[in-house]
Amino acid sequence: MQRESFGEEPCAIARTVDIIGDRWTPLVLRDVALGVTRFDAIQRDLGLSRKVLTQRLQHLLDHEVVTRTPYQDNPVRYDYTLTEKGLDLAMVLVAIQSFGDRWMFGPEESPLRWRHLGCGEISGAVLACEHCGEQVRPGDAVPLRGPGFDERRSPELGAAIDRFADLYDGLPAK
Amino acid sequence: MQRESFGEEPCAIARTVDIIGDRWTPLVLRDVALGVTRFDAIQRDLGLSRKVLTQRLQHLLDHEVVTRTPYQDNPVRYDYTLTEKGLDLAMVLVAIQSFGDRWMFGPEESPLRWRHLGCGEISGAVLACEHCGEQVRPGDAVPLRGPGFDERRSPELGAAIDRFADLYDGLPAK
Repeated sequence: MQRESFGEEPCAIARTVDIIGDRWTPLVLRDVALGVTRFDAIQRDLGLSRKVLTQRLQHLLDHEVVTRTPYQDNPVRYDYTLTEKGLDLAMVLVAIQSFGDRWMFGPEESPLRWRHLGCGEISGAVLACEHCGEQVRPGDAVPLRGPGFDERRSPELGAAIDRFADLYDGLPAK
Repeated sequence: MQRESFGEEPCAIARTVDIIGDRWTPLVLRDVALGVTRFDAIQRDLGLSRKVLTQRLQHLLDHEVVTRTPYQDNPVRYDYTLTEKGLDLAMVLVAIQSFGDRWMFGPEESPLRWRHLGCGEISGAVLACEHCGEQVRPGDAVPLRGPGFDERRSPELGAAIDRFADLYDGLPAK
């Protein structure tokens, strides 16, 4: 994967893009997450070249997003499965799917659905506030500098974020 | 953007990857979402070439994720802002950021935080079930074929998804 790395960028989005920011990696991850765990099966499903799939799987192994276990010797063949980090990253795919279902498919055209085991219903995923549990829609939250914000590297972002401060100035102090 | 399109794939993830599946587009989208709305400011913040930024902004305009409004004539210059679709896509970035904060930064290193206007707290975003509102963690939901599932194009995925059926066979019928 000949490209500069975002692995040291002071941004959680950039560092994650370092893992999934290409055409194939999200789809390889999707397949593994859905239980298509063997090289040949992934390759048949996605129709990409063996070379590219080998690269992408190695990339996911390097980032400790997937792990592999031999299911056969001579020649050795592996099952690829998600690590704990990979299971978390797969939740990002669920968020991506929610967006895609809303904007790319009609209400009755969705190729994939999810049954929430907690309530048993076929349902979608939404973002919620970790503190209060309420659904968070666009505009319901405003950004602010975190402890790792790098003013020197991101003056444009800093100035932009400051303009949101007015939006919560009226709130009671917490 | 010389690449094959996933725009017709029967998968909401693939179609969304068609918009954000490269190195720069998620970061351009991040900047616009955070209020860095002008070409020169985005270019300074990201340090990418003007040519690539022009391509990525056009790509986001083509997908109706951003819109632009002139703020100056002679030469004409634009502010780029998110459409309703773009606001929804920005929520995917929030999910990506949650993952990155957890796995790429220490607890007190996060560069960016969010204040939820609903409860006033600085908080993170989690995925929740749209039906019952409970937080959904990895393993809390199982995939099943949707109405648009294409068995002929995705036999590997179909077979894999079927293996999840056992997990909810014990649930009461809804």
